[in-house]
Amino acid sequence: MIYLDNAATTRRKPPQVIDAVVNAMTTMGNAARGAHSSSLEASRALYDARCKLAKLLGCPQPDHVIFTANSTEALNIAINGTLNPGDHVISTDLEHNSVLRPLYRLEEAGTISLDFVPADRLGNIDYAGFERLIRPETRAIVCTHGSNLTGTLVDLKRVGEICRRNSLLFIVDASQTAGAVPVHMEEMGVDILCFTGHKGLMGPQGTGGLCVRPGVEIRPWKVGGSGVHSYDRSQPQDYPTRLEAGTLNSHGIMGLSAALDFIQEVGVEEIARHEAALTRRFYDGVSRIDGVTVYGDFSQPERGAIVTLNIRDYDSAEMSDALSQAYDIATRPGAHCAPRMHQALGTVDQGAVRFSFAWYNTQEEVDAAIQAVAELAQR
Amino acid sequence: MIYLDNAATTRRKPPQVIDAVVNAMTTMGNAARGAHSSSLEASRALYDARCKLAKLLGCPQPDHVIFTANSTEALNIAINGTLNPGDHVISTDLEHNSVLRPLYRLEEAGTISLDFVPADRLGNIDYAGFERLIRPETRAIVCTHGSNLTGTLVDLKRVGEICRRNSLLFIVDASQTAGAVPVHMEEMGVDILCFTGHKGLMGPQGTGGLCVRPGVEIRPWKVGGSGVHSYDRSQPQDYPTRLEAGTLNSHGIMGLSAALDFIQEVGVEEIARHEAALTRRFYDGVSRIDGVTVYGDFSQPERGAIVTLNIRDYDSAEMSDALSQAYDIATRPGAHCAPRMHQALGTVDQGAVRFSFAWYNTQEEVDAAIQAVAELAQR
Repeated sequence: MIYLDNAATTRRKPPQVIDAVVNAMTTMGNAARGAHSSSLEASRALYDARCKLAKLLGCPQPDHVIFTANSTEALNIAINGTLNPGDHVISTDLEHNSVLRPLYRLEEAGTISLDFVPADRLGNIDYAGFERLIRPETRAIVCTHGSNLTGTLVDLKRVGEICRRNSLLFIVDASQTAGAVPVHMEEMGVDILCFTGHKGLMGPQGTGGLCVRPGVEIRPWKVGGSGVHSYDRSQPQDYPTRLEAGTLNSHGIMGLSAALDFIQEVGVEEIARHEAALTRRFYDGVSRIDGVTVYGDFSQPERGAIVTLNIRDYDSAEMSDALSQAYDIATRPGAHCAPRMHQALGTVDQGAVRFSFAWYNTQEEVDAAIQAVAELAQR
Repeated sequence: MIYLDNAATTRRKPPQVIDAVVNAMTTMGNAARGAHSSSLEASRALYDARCKLAKLLGCPQPDHVIFTANSTEALNIAINGTLNPGDHVISTDLEHNSVLRPLYRLEEAGTISLDFVPADRLGNIDYAGFERLIRPETRAIVCTHGSNLTGTLVDLKRVGEICRRNSLLFIVDASQTAGAVPVHMEEMGVDILCFTGHKGLMGPQGTGGLCVRPGVEIRPWKVGGSGVHSYDRSQPQDYPTRLEAGTLNSHGIMGLSAALDFIQEVGVEEIARHEAALTRRFYDGVSRIDGVTVYGDFSQPERGAIVTLNIRDYDSAEMSDALSQAYDIATRPGAHCAPRMHQALGTVDQGAVRFSFAWYNTQEEVDAAIQAVAELAQR
């Protein structure tokens, strides 16, 4: 199979990721739940994973790296744990439902009011749009680092500066970028950075988390067993325990930790360069095929490793099926959980077929995919 | 190492569990996030795991088996997603903080009022206590199936009958029992059964969930990407999607699924018989050692595979350390996230050392642990 659905999950993981999960599943106790060696080693290994994430993502303190089941949980924690009645929030048309639905829920409950910086037909936003929408009650900007539909990157540093200037909380969804392009939350002025472990970070599913700038207060989300302060009626206030009730997915996190070693070894810049080269090659190949429409702006110097396209009025689900059945190429069709972006691009009815690349993809795979698109376009 | 901390996590898993996780990590796409074969296979495999859980735990519909990161998340979803302002809730002194803290939080917010059926010095509850506490506003009983401190089992069928008679919602924490003793939510009259995957079910950490009786409405907890109905502003209403935003821990769930095959093969009754024999053997051995106090009621015909004890006024953390360092026996000391039960047993200051047994433990390990306790008691 030529797997080009890496924006959904990177199917191929570095071999040491699998070894680390196997090792954890055969030796590990429950972290912070005992004093015997297998429990203590589990606690140390988890802390080690926090340190690696803090380093990779530019989080000032390892104990402010919180583990969650996925990026969606991290975003729900960040959004529900910081916003208060009366707050106004600014987001963008680029967002995934993991940002939109928590915000819509608070809006529909009458808790917050909400505005969106619009995307144009190329999927770009006008950064001045953020400042135009700011009003006295504005409390936060919640925005993605990279569109999961077009690969468009948001200039976080620029948005971070707007947040600093206006004393706004800056919550970022780095689901599509962590591990695949450089991210440094401190330098970018990000207050809460939400990430998933199983995409660009090449770890197991069931991992993810949020990095919290020291000083940012987030109310507990799920509460329960903490292994410490058992007699308190409420969740302990210290990070990371404040946001981590119950047993962590330590087996998965050990895989993520090994993936972080791999990424440090190869270098995020090198990964970004490789993925950008594949993306450009694919874009150059498909964009000159008669009948193909590629979405997004490919004149931008930096972007995610995603090319989304349609062939004339070919239904996107049918095209993705044909790619799977006739060419064994895995892509993703349909709506991609990004409804506002589809509205901006004009692809609500047709959906679109997304090709997304990762470290393990090759030029040969890209060329085979270009060839397949060319053949389908000739039908 | 002699691992006797299975109530925290079963460290040894059936070999096919590890094989299944490795297989998932090398072949699986993202379930419900594409139409290519690796994504479709992931969806089918997840449904298969739901079917196995529904069968094992007596849940009438596989699509009412919801996956979560752990039992704590399941309990937070159940408690926060069903209770309404003004509700009165009855729980017990046996509960873990994963039940207590979500309830305390709602009580402190003024949302619910709360009463507890007390445990006596043996850790037993008087079932008539539930009926004595019922008032017109009582909406739910939330209770554990088995104490994580003493192994005391609650007669769920009896409590379920009280709930039916009084039209109360019955939420059960089966963290200590699922997989280790027979559980049948329908026969026991349970409305929502919360479980973890990494204890008695012998699956990976990062797995767990809740089984919901058809007709029971639970409000969404985290909301976000669902892979379906992408243009709706709110989370889709159908189970399991209603409660499962974001990418699931499919790698872990595949391990859990293999563990469920193992459990079906061996039989829960056989597992329960084996664990009960080890528990009884250990109890008989330690209870006759001079200076040892065992907590809980061992005259009950059925109980969890837990024996918790102290030696005179020996600090429980020091005793657990000594067991680990001098005998390489893993146990758990301290407060066990069960503050009300420690109050009932009178072990708040000293804590207690918990020995907990699982399928892979042997008579020889039990005998070595008895010998170790005897030696420590002679010091």
